[in-house]
Amino acid sequence: MTKVKIKPATGKLGILTPGLGAVSTTFMAGVFRIRKGLSKPFGSVTQMQTIRLGGRDKSRSPLIRDFVPLADLRDIEFAAWDIFDDNAYEAAVKAGVLDVRDLADVRGEMEKVKPLKAVFDQKFIHNIDGPNKKKGSKWEMAQEVREDIRNFRKAKKLDRMVVVWCGSTEVYIEQHPVHETIESFENGLKNNDEWISPSMIYAYASIMEGVPYANGAPHLTTDIPALDELARQKGVPISGKDFKTGQTLMKTVIAPALKARMLGVRGWFSTNILGNRDGLVLDDPGSFKSKEISKKSALEFIFQPDMYPDLYKDTYHKVRINYYPPKGDDKEGWDNIDIFGWMGYPMQLKVNFLCKDSILAAPIVLDLALFSDLAQRAGMKGIQEWLSFYFKAPMHAPQVHPEHDLFIQHTKLKNTLRHMMGEELITHLGLEYYE
Amino acid sequence: MTKVKIKPATGKLGILTPGLGAVSTTFMAGVFRIRKGLSKPFGSVTQMQTIRLGGRDKSRSPLIRDFVPLADLRDIEFAAWDIFDDNAYEAAVKAGVLDVRDLADVRGEMEKVKPLKAVFDQKFIHNIDGPNKKKGSKWEMAQEVREDIRNFRKAKKLDRMVVVWCGSTEVYIEQHPVHETIESFENGLKNNDEWISPSMIYAYASIMEGVPYANGAPHLTTDIPALDELARQKGVPISGKDFKTGQTLMKTVIAPALKARMLGVRGWFSTNILGNRDGLVLDDPGSFKSKEISKKSALEFIFQPDMYPDLYKDTYHKVRINYYPPKGDDKEGWDNIDIFGWMGYPMQLKVNFLCKDSILAAPIVLDLALFSDLAQRAGMKGIQEWLSFYFKAPMHAPQVHPEHDLFIQHTKLKNTLRHMMGEELITHLGLEYYE
Amino acid sequence: MTKVKIKPATGKLGILTPGLGAVSTTFMAGVFRIRKGLSKPFGSVTQMQTIRLGGRDKSRSPLIRDFVPLADLRDIEFAAWDIFDDNAYEAAVKAGVLDVRDLADVRGEMEKVKPLKAVFDQKFIHNIDGPNKKKGSKWEMAQEVREDIRNFRKAKKLDRMVVVWCGSTEVYIEQHPVHETIESFENGLKNNDEWISPSMIYAYASIMEGVPYANGAPHLTTDIPALDELARQKGVPISGKDFKTGQTLMKTVIAPALKARMLGVRGWFSTNILGNRDGLVLDDPGSFKSKEISKKSALEFIFQPDMYPDLYKDTYHKVRINYYPPKGDDKEGWDNIDIFGWMGYPMQLKVNFLCKDSILAAPIVLDLALFSDLAQRAGMKGIQEWLSFYFKAPMHAPQVHPEHDLFIQHTKLKNTLRHMMGEELITHLGLEYYE
Amino acid sequence: MTKVKIKPATGKLGILTPGLGAVSTTFMAGVFRIRKGLSKPFGSVTQMQTIRLGGRDKSRSPLIRDFVPLADLRDIEFAAWDIFDDNAYEAAVKAGVLDVRDLADVRGEMEKVKPLKAVFDQKFIHNIDGPNKKKGSKWEMAQEVREDIRNFRKAKKLDRMVVVWCGSTEVYIEQHPVHETIESFENGLKNNDEWISPSMIYAYASIMEGVPYANGAPHLTTDIPALDELARQKGVPISGKDFKTGQTLMKTVIAPALKARMLGVRGWFSTNILGNRDGLVLDDPGSFKSKEISKKSALEFIFQPDMYPDLYKDTYHKVRINYYPPKGDDKEGWDNIDIFGWMGYPMQLKVNFLCKDSILAAPIVLDLALFSDLAQRAGMKGIQEWLSFYFKAPMHAPQVHPEHDLFIQHTKLKNTLRHMMGEELITHLGLEYYE
Repeated sequence: MTKVKIKPATGKLGILTPGLGAVSTTFMAGVFRIRKGLSKPFGSVTQMQTIRLGGRDKSRSPLIRDFVPLADLRDIEFAAWDIFDDNAYEAAVKAGVLDVRDLADVRGEMEKVKPLKAVFDQKFIHNIDGPNKKKGSKWEMAQEVREDIRNFRKAKKLDRMVVVWCGSTEVYIEQHPVHETIESFENGLKNNDEWISPSMIYAYASIMEGVPYANGAPHLTTDIPALDELARQKGVPISGKDFKTGQTLMKTVIAPALKARMLGVRGWFSTNILGNRDGLVLDDPGSFKSKEISKKSALEFIFQPDMYPDLYKDTYHKVRINYYPPKGDDKEGWDNIDIFGWMGYPMQLKVNFLCKDSILAAPIVLDLALFSDLAQRAGMKGIQEWLSFYFKAPMHAPQVHPEHDLFIQHTKLKNTLRHMMGEELITHLGLEYYE
Repeated sequence: MTKVKIKPATGKLGILTPGLGAVSTTFMAGVFRIRKGLSKPFGSVTQMQTIRLGGRDKSRSPLIRDFVPLADLRDIEFAAWDIFDDNAYEAAVKAGVLDVRDLADVRGEMEKVKPLKAVFDQKFIHNIDGPNKKKGSKWEMAQEVREDIRNFRKAKKLDRMVVVWCGSTEVYIEQHPVHETIESFENGLKNNDEWISPSMIYAYASIMEGVPYANGAPHLTTDIPALDELARQKGVPISGKDFKTGQTLMKTVIAPALKARMLGVRGWFSTNILGNRDGLVLDDPGSFKSKEISKKSALEFIFQPDMYPDLYKDTYHKVRINYYPPKGDDKEGWDNIDIFGWMGYPMQLKVNFLCKDSILAAPIVLDLALFSDLAQRAGMKGIQEWLSFYFKAPMHAPQVHPEHDLFIQHTKLKNTLRHMMGEELITHLGLEYYE
Repeated sequence: MTKVKIKPATGKLGILTPGLGAVSTTFMAGVFRIRKGLSKPFGSVTQMQTIRLGGRDKSRSPLIRDFVPLADLRDIEFAAWDIFDDNAYEAAVKAGVLDVRDLADVRGEMEKVKPLKAVFDQKFIHNIDGPNKKKGSKWEMAQEVREDIRNFRKAKKLDRMVVVWCGSTEVYIEQHPVHETIESFENGLKNNDEWISPSMIYAYASIMEGVPYANGAPHLTTDIPALDELARQKGVPISGKDFKTGQTLMKTVIAPALKARMLGVRGWFSTNILGNRDGLVLDDPGSFKSKEISKKSALEFIFQPDMYPDLYKDTYHKVRINYYPPKGDDKEGWDNIDIFGWMGYPMQLKVNFLCKDSILAAPIVLDLALFSDLAQRAGMKGIQEWLSFYFKAPMHAPQVHPEHDLFIQHTKLKNTLRHMMGEELITHLGLEYYE
Repeated sequence: MTKVKIKPATGKLGILTPGLGAVSTTFMAGVFRIRKGLSKPFGSVTQMQTIRLGGRDKSRSPLIRDFVPLADLRDIEFAAWDIFDDNAYEAAVKAGVLDVRDLADVRGEMEKVKPLKAVFDQKFIHNIDGPNKKKGSKWEMAQEVREDIRNFRKAKKLDRMVVVWCGSTEVYIEQHPVHETIESFENGLKNNDEWISPSMIYAYASIMEGVPYANGAPHLTTDIPALDELARQKGVPISGKDFKTGQTLMKTVIAPALKARMLGVRGWFSTNILGNRDGLVLDDPGSFKSKEISKKSALEFIFQPDMYPDLYKDTYHKVRINYYPPKGDDKEGWDNIDIFGWMGYPMQLKVNFLCKDSILAAPIVLDLALFSDLAQRAGMKGIQEWLSFYFKAPMHAPQVHPEHDLFIQHTKLKNTLRHMMGEELITHLGLEYYE
């Protein structure tokens, strides 16, 4: 097989996050600690995972980071936008995810990350507000974000950049005519069109600057035709949406297993309790709707009820998210799954996941930044379906359905890496050991 | 790709089970009901699952049973050996898995299945005993089992047969010299060697008769060199061991997910409560050891602690099985998994599976019978690693490690079917939709 | 101590239930089966519980039914009102609580119980409707209910009667001026006052007929001054409200234990999934509010946050009820309780209750009927606080707080019985064994 | 009612603990922090609980510590025996229960508590050993312990003392003739009788010195006739045994609730995972047997199967304790309870308690010390059954059964305090509010 041409990862990589809250500060603190040898990059596929090359009877399993040319953690610089003006250290302390003692070792580095003024519109996020905001028309704010990006590149002498959305969930909106073409979108920016959200402004600016964009929240952003087309024109990889952490992660693990075994599902009840700013924002019905749709579609696509009506046509699926302050950043998911097997006999599966939202999300931010940068250097542009592994509602080409099954997503990611490097794809056939 | 030559599935298929208890009677009752249109074959991959052929943008997803030539359910005949002399109906009522009303519809068919005299040795199974047993030396009993098989073929005018072990778990034993060659084994039979277990006698007899053998329990049977060699000489597919149901099924689903995401595991505690005859037998330390080793190895192989020492080297793994009569055939698994992610922060995952042992096992018996028969008609012999999907401790070639990950097993199974039929293997690369 | 004068339980007792659904048909079927010796009265304190009399070193522990003069199960007759016209057998089959085989044995008796036309007003219950309804003004309907009661007495030659509400939950309403006096209430009936609910009409009618009334749902009924006063004037015992089953039962067990041990509670999250008609009605916000208030107040009163501000002042308490059809009459509660102990260290308690709503409620209906009848014969009238044991939101005198602690309620019930019969009250002091 | 004569709590109280491990150091650290105003005494009944006096309509609910004359926390001095020679600070750090930052504030005080040489015998505790041990015959060691006690009194100028066993669980032993009389016991000490355990030596010494003794572990100590008789002769209160924390605490809460409602129990499966020194010791079958018997008897006594054979005669009860190092001092209990109600229909209750052993035990040590001292000043001697509230296997007079129900125990404790102070006992009758 022939290897794809990939530019080397020389020089520095800038990572910019809209949002300097629980997720992005946890991400930064971890990277700083890892660079100092104080932590290991648990949870990160780019840093810790190996990839099998060739037969199972050979021992070729290099680390992914030794196999494909990724940016080195020592070459990363950070920037962020936020409506609050706390620096990354202060924001991390307020977020309460990490023990202050773990932050103490990297306090100096954290304090240097000061938030840029944010694009914000309370029409799109209801339950919070803050002082550190840009002013002017949507077009002017877009230009300011582009300038922020260019300033960051200059100030830190960056070779390349990536933007990863780590902010709150915007309210649910449908696609409107303004989203359809690049032209209509740019006119919309100038006319302050009410259907252009802050996240779209960030995405537009970063694509215009040739910077890959990954969307960690469930709202509509790069999945509008205008931005998709712009990304392909500018040669920019885009990916999304909604980091797949906690409960949905487990759902896309368990549902494929039930389907693999042809076990029917009468009902699936998922409830979540969480107490951080994310929970507060999701307490608003509009933001919840964005999240609910993102969370619910996974089962639809995995179960294929049209193909398996006897098993999944009447599956009753209910998702509840509850703001419950005692949890703080801890998040607790509880799933009750009513299944049936041979002769229709009923069984139950209950999953209780006591997780930490930002701890699960942080390494995803790192992996998406590094893989998006790799993709760009490999000449890949537009939707990066091979990064579906990281998302609750993965973006995909219009002619195909999204892949939600975590294991298909994982195979897709690894075979894409093998493909890039000209290695044989793994099919797990393995009949050769028996002949 | 070229298609493998496969003989058609004409005529009748006989399925013989050592053991006429909860699992095999549930299996039979279900098949009888399905044939009458009273039940659907939930849980059975051969009967209900589709297989995608070609790109995701095409719509080629036939049922597996329409894709590969499998025996038709209407062409199946049943026979069984057991130490109790209840017929299949009586045994099913005693097992208490199925509601007697569900049995009523197929009582006539069930009553006709009367147990053949069993090979039994209380050295290998301690906590139960019964009256319906063969006598004589191990060699003589092996000959009798062969005769039983031939009589069944003749009586029912069968075209082909399969044997699937559905009996209790024998005590744990290591491999001994008598197990090493066909010659030593046959001498051992004649000398009544103490290390030849009843299950080995059944397996020997069925292989000698050219009949595939699948081992649903965790004890040592066809995984001794003598029987492996014999199977290859006689052109007989063998597979095993230990039906992957309940708790281990979930473990081989969740562990791969944790590993895919590089989440570390500090400890995994699994406890099981069950109240059927299986639970009673496993209350004996010897039988429990067979089961424990079968259940514990899955995590070892999935986590690859040598490759990921920071994540899994010190994983504390404990498995407990508790005989708890109030459950009857219901089985309840409870797993507590102590995991850690970014910066080493701890999280917990708890899984409570309220399942029914025989309901999960019955469709596996069916699938193994039909796929083993298919393999034989396709000229495959010896270990059938592509059937790992169904086993807690899958048999494998000596030069490779076993695959425990349910999703790798599933891919292996489906790509093997595609390979048989000359279809392209699925790699999930899918870059073509974006070019 | 002197014994209270109690009339003997001679002759027949009629039990009338507004509502002929899951709860009341399960109750009736059980009583019919118990009378035939086919079932035991599990769950019923009046039928199975003993009561200790005197010191622990004596052996005086008669059955309650042998200690106080209760109506015999053989002397009970049933009647019911419902908006659907199914007889009790048909209604029970539709409710799906009981296996039809368990109903078969008492089908004849059940079929004879045919519903009287119900008082119904969709303003008070939104999600259901049916054909079997009374017409006319509220006053006229009240008169009709009184006539139903008198006809039942005559037809069955009854000595005494009791009414127990087993219908759906009405929407939440506050107390209005019309509820204040007997006069204003009777005027309201005549004027068709919008704030007089169907349940108040049943209660008014039964009190006017001298028949005790127990309220099994959380809505406002006899807890209005007009009906309280009327009950005292007519010498009628009243009790309520909301049968304490499932989740709240467990809460009033666990909360007292935490308080007994001075363990603080940071948060208590309760979620419930249920799929019966009750769940459907509670899916309406108005009915849910009645239920939520009933369910939430228990913790308030048990924890006494004003007395224990350090432990319970900031307890975050959230209750969610989810209509989830796959459960049917099964109800599943899940509680997550975040507690703290010595030095403020946090701990968690999680309770998962897989219960059956009507199975838990049915014996409560029986006990309330028999004890209400006993109370009346003992000359007790108005609020029966000693029956708090059976209610989620127990009625109580205005000058005292309600007792929600199940164990205080149980002590109250038993010491009331001892008091009635002139036996020494139990204090558990027990120093005499050590002197 | 007449008040009992109680000596005032003047001067200092010394608390001595055999065992300077997780429980006792957590206890001490908490007391030191509370004295400095850094923590509140959560979990302690003596410090935080109020007691209702008189009617519910009055507002007389003083704190218990304002109601009965208890020693003040500022007047407490600590001493301990242990086989390891770490001081209390070092031992607390090793135990890993408390965050080192919480210990930092009281490090000075903790470091001053240095362990006295322990009485130790590996025949009674198998899985651990240490260097700081007394030598000589059992008689000589008993004299040394007495001297330790007298030295402590002198050194700290104490007014009174209490001994509370906070060490590991000794192996299970039955009562032997040597335990029968004071004389046989003292001869046994002199003859080094093998059936006299270290804990008995501590108890003997403390009783001889007139010091109350409370037994926090499940092994046989003061429940032998010799020590019971000695305590009564010397006017010394004794209590035990086995602190009621975690899982058994919950069992004695839930079982009484099920019984109050006459719900039957088909089976109760309890499993526990814990990773501290206690878990390691209990991994030994002998120590486990002590614990198992202590844990199992609670259900027997609460359910009264002889009185309620239909409900509890065939209850299958299984208790498992699993040493699982990842938990450390965290302890996780999981209970599955199979219950049945009306018409025998089955339901399930599952309780998952994520608790901290020493956090639950520490305030019990405090309460037992203060209440034992109170009892002695009130002239109470021998078994203190009113302290059953704190124990898994409460000691009791031979002519009565032990009370395991937490709520009966709580009532007994509070009514005993009311009795001491000449207040009316509470019966919860409360009919006066309705007359």
